[in-house]
Amino acid sequence: MKLSDIAQRLGCEPPEKGEVEILGVKGIDEAGVGDLTFVANAKYLAKLSTTKAAAVILSLDAPSVSLPSLRVANPYLAFAQTLEIFYPPAVLPEGIHPTAVIAPTARIGSGAAIGPYAVIGDDVVIGVHARLFAHVVIYPKVRIGCAFMAHAGVVVREGTQIGDRVVLQSGVVIGGDGFGYVPLPDGSIYKIPQTGTVILEDDVEIGANTTIDRATVGTTVIRRRTKIDNLVQVAHGCEVGEGAMLAAQVGLAGSTKLEAGVRLGGQVGTAGHLTVGKNTMVAAQSGIPNNVPANTVIGGYPAVEISAWRRYSAALPKVPELLRRVRRLEQALLGKNEK
Amino acid sequence: MKLSDIAQRLGCEPPEKGEVEILGVKGIDEAGVGDLTFVANAKYLAKLSTTKAAAVILSLDAPSVSLPSLRVANPYLAFAQTLEIFYPPAVLPEGIHPTAVIAPTARIGSGAAIGPYAVIGDDVVIGVHARLFAHVVIYPKVRIGCAFMAHAGVVVREGTQIGDRVVLQSGVVIGGDGFGYVPLPDGSIYKIPQTGTVILEDDVEIGANTTIDRATVGTTVIRRRTKIDNLVQVAHGCEVGEGAMLAAQVGLAGSTKLEAGVRLGGQVGTAGHLTVGKNTMVAAQSGIPNNVPANTVIGGYPAVEISAWRRYSAALPKVPELLRRVRRLEQALLGKNEK
Amino acid sequence: MKLSDIAQRLGCEPPEKGEVEILGVKGIDEAGVGDLTFVANAKYLAKLSTTKAAAVILSLDAPSVSLPSLRVANPYLAFAQTLEIFYPPAVLPEGIHPTAVIAPTARIGSGAAIGPYAVIGDDVVIGVHARLFAHVVIYPKVRIGCAFMAHAGVVVREGTQIGDRVVLQSGVVIGGDGFGYVPLPDGSIYKIPQTGTVILEDDVEIGANTTIDRATVGTTVIRRRTKIDNLVQVAHGCEVGEGAMLAAQVGLAGSTKLEAGVRLGGQVGTAGHLTVGKNTMVAAQSGIPNNVPANTVIGGYPAVEISAWRRYSAALPKVPELLRRVRRLEQALLGKNEK
Repeated sequence: MKLSDIAQRLGCEPPEKGEVEILGVKGIDEAGVGDLTFVANAKYLAKLSTTKAAAVILSLDAPSVSLPSLRVANPYLAFAQTLEIFYPPAVLPEGIHPTAVIAPTARIGSGAAIGPYAVIGDDVVIGVHARLFAHVVIYPKVRIGCAFMAHAGVVVREGTQIGDRVVLQSGVVIGGDGFGYVPLPDGSIYKIPQTGTVILEDDVEIGANTTIDRATVGTTVIRRRTKIDNLVQVAHGCEVGEGAMLAAQVGLAGSTKLEAGVRLGGQVGTAGHLTVGKNTMVAAQSGIPNNVPANTVIGGYPAVEISAWRRYSAALPKVPELLRRVRRLEQALLGKNEK
Repeated sequence: MKLSDIAQRLGCEPPEKGEVEILGVKGIDEAGVGDLTFVANAKYLAKLSTTKAAAVILSLDAPSVSLPSLRVANPYLAFAQTLEIFYPPAVLPEGIHPTAVIAPTARIGSGAAIGPYAVIGDDVVIGVHARLFAHVVIYPKVRIGCAFMAHAGVVVREGTQIGDRVVLQSGVVIGGDGFGYVPLPDGSIYKIPQTGTVILEDDVEIGANTTIDRATVGTTVIRRRTKIDNLVQVAHGCEVGEGAMLAAQVGLAGSTKLEAGVRLGGQVGTAGHLTVGKNTMVAAQSGIPNNVPANTVIGGYPAVEISAWRRYSAALPKVPELLRRVRRLEQALLGKNEK
Repeated sequence: MKLSDIAQRLGCEPPEKGEVEILGVKGIDEAGVGDLTFVANAKYLAKLSTTKAAAVILSLDAPSVSLPSLRVANPYLAFAQTLEIFYPPAVLPEGIHPTAVIAPTARIGSGAAIGPYAVIGDDVVIGVHARLFAHVVIYPKVRIGCAFMAHAGVVVREGTQIGDRVVLQSGVVIGGDGFGYVPLPDGSIYKIPQTGTVILEDDVEIGANTTIDRATVGTTVIRRRTKIDNLVQVAHGCEVGEGAMLAAQVGLAGSTKLEAGVRLGGQVGTAGHLTVGKNTMVAAQSGIPNNVPANTVIGGYPAVEISAWRRYSAALPKVPELLRRVRRLEQALLGKNEK
């Protein structure tokens, strides 16, 4: 495809040297002969002097370069859009595979593609253009919007409510029972029925083997546009605000509330029954024991303001020497020799 | 349902104003018009002055309140029991779905409900009243007690032994190969056959996508009444004592022994080949490098007695200033100016 | 089986008392009457004085013992080999189960065993002697070498390339979409198509419910002989070097590079876009923020050289007392009484 054709598809100005043939799209470090690449951050512009790429996507205000270039407002977005042009996603053929077991009371919108051995329970409602890959299991009474995509092995438990354009990667479990028990004096442990449900709002995407538990009563909610990575645990009664991003292996204990725009690094844990304020960012592996104000950047175990955490981490290695120095001071001042 | 009917079902004293109509059951923060709620902890009694709930479950010794109330020995337990009344669980219709593939040598007790595409291997024995949802796979030679419940996508590997009333949430893998290898001088890595098995005793419940590996030789054991949350890893050769509770994303390295009643917070890790004494509680995200005595409360990385950990955590932020103070002392006392 | 027969199978010297009957194989702590056990580490030799085992596998240079013994160069390897003799693995009968859905364009080598409800997509190529247990799903255009083994519930996404003798435990997801998005000014979050793929080289084994994401562009690579435990997250664009070992619940952020022979303890996390040098070992639960040199042993959060980390961890508990001592010095020297 010619560079000028890509410019047209992206709706940007026709480039000089638009006749350059583009064969693929790669990041700046991997781009080879025939590739279109991109630079979104000025500090990587220097790499353009050595790249073998055929052309580059640049921001409108980037300096001029010798390589053929497309100028756009958001190079990272244009990169994503160009990937779509060159690499169409795996397609599931439209239609319902004859081995799918679909309850007679289920209602499925037009344009659905449903793979082998999918199982759809009683009273399920699914909107138009759903794509359910092989072995997806939808329990009864689930309601799902349009353009739903569930990869092989997804399980959605009874009563879950799912908005439009939701994507579930393989192995996701939505609506499993929350972890709630009453220990009794005789040593037995009584299970609290987990009677609530899960709501996934529009444009939510959830990564492979992540688990989102149903509430004990009421709902566990993932608000619209939120993206959750692989192997994340969202416990019963949590509320994850709009446009949040949770990296892999995050764990939210019961009734955690994340406000809109919160970003959690990988393996972060929260103590439950707390609120993380909107737009707050949390460094990987942090542990959050209490409420966190909005618009902060925190890290550590327990998590504090990130620059404080960096200061503490930098000071810790000096403690052994500090001990020696204090001992010397004590000897000089107090004549202490013991110890 | 009238409040007096609920009192009768719970076996407690008929309440005053027993004619109040109850429409649902909710926690104190969510309860609305028509709801029955509960207060198990005296510090939440104040919330009763503003709740819209129709009635409340209280302990026998709680002060009198204006709201209609049920008096019980254990309000939290009564709450769980009331949830059962109002929200019957998802039902799998009795019978074996025609698509289930069941080995002729498998023996399944009466009253079973087995969903579509379940697969049950040779020589499997399952007790009465089993509920296997869609896509459950039971490998050969597994033995399972009565009232087994396995949600969609559970995998139970060969030879596993499961007691009565065990519940497995979706995506659980029981008896996967343990992680055991012999690195050889030529750079190859020889797999140690994982020849042992897994035992899940009576009343065990295991959360979604949790993995419990088979032992190299002998058994990995989860003793009766133990409850394990989602995405937990139990490595080969572990023994988890009776009535333990493991929160989400806990990881037990090989041959960890937890004695009865141990409780681990989320994301806790153990180093393996160690024992955590009975009833010990471990704070979330802690790392346990060594044996831990019984009846302790520990936390941190590495985990120590919890109040000590809190003291250390509180002292760490003071180290940067401490460095400055020691430098000042040195200057005053020793006339040091360097650094 | 007689001890002398085992010696013959292992190719080692015929033992004295070779007529001893061996009924099973166990570790030194579990071995009972009739068992063959092993001692690979001299510090456990003392246990031989009290064992009930019938015989023991010892290194060539171990001292002589009264128990019948096999002498080998690598007792741990011989233990693994003896386990193979006594405990043959679960067998999947050769042949393709009639319920397997296999695309007409898929090509499967001879000697395959494919279980019920397996699904194999268009243009898949699988080598000889594959074993796919029930419910394995292989998306289109996957290429797999010989002697592939995938346990129940494995999902392999489109375009994945898999070498020879690869083993995937249950619930593994290979090639799920990486976690890549462009947040836009209007609050929406644009998904970056994950157009790359995953390569698993020869002799890789991957544990239950582990997820390995496809690259955004290019490949996520697991080099030959690498072993990965359960519930591990390998993000898009990672490269894991030859013969690496990753314990359970490890998380590698995007574009992490582990060189050959790296070993990561359980729950370790890496920050992404960094390199861990070859043969480096990392203690459990460590957090790796930056590049790590080769042939080091590191630990902690953030991870540093392990003995330094141990020193810091040991010093931290002394900080509260250090504060008191510095205050006393200040009072003595500077006459400070405030605070």
